[in-house]
Amino acid sequence: MENLKIPYAELLETFETVLIQKGFDEKRARLSAELFAKSSLDGVASHGLNRFPFFVKMIEEGIVDVKAEPTLVGSFGVFERWDGHLGPGNLNAHHCMDRAIQLSQQLGIGCVALRNTNHWMRGGNFGWQAVEAGFIGICFTNAIPNMPAWGGSEPVLGNNPLVIAFPRRDGPIVLDMAMSQFSYGKMSSYLKENMEMPFEAGFDEEGHLTKDPKVILDKELALPIGLWKGAGLSLLLDLLAAVLSEGDATHQIGQRQYEQNISQVFISLCPAKLGLEEFPEEKINAVIEHFKASSTFGEEQVRYPGEKTLEVRERNLAEGVPVDREIWKKVLGMKKD
Amino acid sequence: MENLKIPYAELLETFETVLIQKGFDEKRARLSAELFAKSSLDGVASHGLNRFPFFVKMIEEGIVDVKAEPTLVGSFGVFERWDGHLGPGNLNAHHCMDRAIQLSQQLGIGCVALRNTNHWMRGGNFGWQAVEAGFIGICFTNAIPNMPAWGGSEPVLGNNPLVIAFPRRDGPIVLDMAMSQFSYGKMSSYLKENMEMPFEAGFDEEGHLTKDPKVILDKELALPIGLWKGAGLSLLLDLLAAVLSEGDATHQIGQRQYEQNISQVFISLCPAKLGLEEFPEEKINAVIEHFKASSTFGEEQVRYPGEKTLEVRERNLAEGVPVDREIWKKVLGMKKD
Repeated sequence: MENLKIPYAELLETFETVLIQKGFDEKRARLSAELFAKSSLDGVASHGLNRFPFFVKMIEEGIVDVKAEPTLVGSFGVFERWDGHLGPGNLNAHHCMDRAIQLSQQLGIGCVALRNTNHWMRGGNFGWQAVEAGFIGICFTNAIPNMPAWGGSEPVLGNNPLVIAFPRRDGPIVLDMAMSQFSYGKMSSYLKENMEMPFEAGFDEEGHLTKDPKVILDKELALPIGLWKGAGLSLLLDLLAAVLSEGDATHQIGQRQYEQNISQVFISLCPAKLGLEEFPEEKINAVIEHFKASSTFGEEQVRYPGEKTLEVRERNLAEGVPVDREIWKKVLGMKKD
Repeated sequence: MENLKIPYAELLETFETVLIQKGFDEKRARLSAELFAKSSLDGVASHGLNRFPFFVKMIEEGIVDVKAEPTLVGSFGVFERWDGHLGPGNLNAHHCMDRAIQLSQQLGIGCVALRNTNHWMRGGNFGWQAVEAGFIGICFTNAIPNMPAWGGSEPVLGNNPLVIAFPRRDGPIVLDMAMSQFSYGKMSSYLKENMEMPFEAGFDEEGHLTKDPKVILDKELALPIGLWKGAGLSLLLDLLAAVLSEGDATHQIGQRQYEQNISQVFISLCPAKLGLEEFPEEKINAVIEHFKASSTFGEEQVRYPGEKTLEVRERNLAEGVPVDREIWKKVLGMKKD
């Protein structure tokens, strides 16, 4: 089914209208709507429009408290600890990256740990937030258990996305990666098309690597990147997030019906306060140029993380943002006229 | 061939004696010898004894300057930039993690970037250094190009090891992982035994995933963990290390005959200065207990990163450190009586 294309402004306004109807005040509705709309605009509809109906459901179920604002729990120079009070995850995350940026503007580095928050939707948004201000941004989150330990036969680790973002005038470098090789959403799409995954994506019921999305989805045995390595990194990111925020760890999040009370960390580095140029362009450009000059097996150049984003954004601004017809219809239906 | 077992004290003394003969002053010889000996003691001989002859060769070739000590380039509160002047990599790294620890004791967080250093040998040593002091330690390094970009047919990225270490009385959690699925050393061992790798380990001459160590070694096309994901993470770690230290990036390191002038970052977090208990045992133990309780496909429990280390260390202290006979003989031969 061909996608429909919708002007960005219409997408944004629609989200905003629905969120105001759900009880958001205007300013917060605008920002949350923007974060959803930008995800679709940048080609990450899975965490933009496609996630919006679930977000609204979480509001209706009382999991996301639209009125809750994050509060400061403790301040320790370069480090702050915040409580998200189960407010909207994208607003809590945006607030905490903003605090990290402010701290780093004064002190070179800023680190903010956030507890009791909800899913931040697209983590990359908060990397972009940092680089658009000219800062290096790093953030990560824990999650519900959705990956096995190495050798394990049940999900005990979160896919715990990690974002690292570098400012650069000719296009920032923004890595936004979960610790699972493929998301369950991606595996569901392949299953719907009756297709195998392009690479090993998880474990079957005997613990062997497989490309079959069905058997992986059955037991939620998604493959950690790098086998034992990504499983280890996931565990350490969970420890960092839960310990620094004094919030819940993955095993506690897994005890609830929905993924909530998650823990996150936001870090900003201010180049100008670390004895660097505002954008250390020359060094970064040299790294990127060398990288792009790699010989390849195909005809296309290799791509750095986030490279396509600006191009996709520009095209979608000009031609409209591709949306799934069914989901768009559903979201339009949420608007009371 | 069965390994020989050598008392730890003998291993340590032998390294120390050779290093003094190579021009180290006594105190630095002792510390460098300890870092080598501890790697073998902890079961990581690849970066302990087995690496020692190459380290001595690097001294003899003038790549490692035994007299060079790191100097402070710039100080910015929680952040310091150091120059390693091509001194011994393990001593430079130890010094910088020590500085990070000291900064974090005062300010909660300490971050040190180091340029112009040499290979740190076993990165895990510096994670252990932090946790033995009761601190959370994070460090990473860039490297010579030894992995392809996603879709690339030549090595342009470093395997850039990343260490994250958490203090814990019942055994710290210490992740020490390179961005390649397997090291070339490991692949060479499999090739010598005429064996396939247990999992996909790199790319063949047509760019397909393969378990055959020979074809991977031929073109140095080791597999990044998680395919495009580990490749992306490697690029970002290189950018962080090179930009923050104002040192060389992987592409510059690759232009030299040997891997030298590498860039590293050391981070320490002091729990007591972040409003936490000295060891946040209860939370960490709960995470580890839940993790260990995972059901498995085999009979063994799942293991957290670093779990075996204390057990191996204790056994090797009691029974002697296993050493490769040939390499041990070679190192003994370096001692002039």
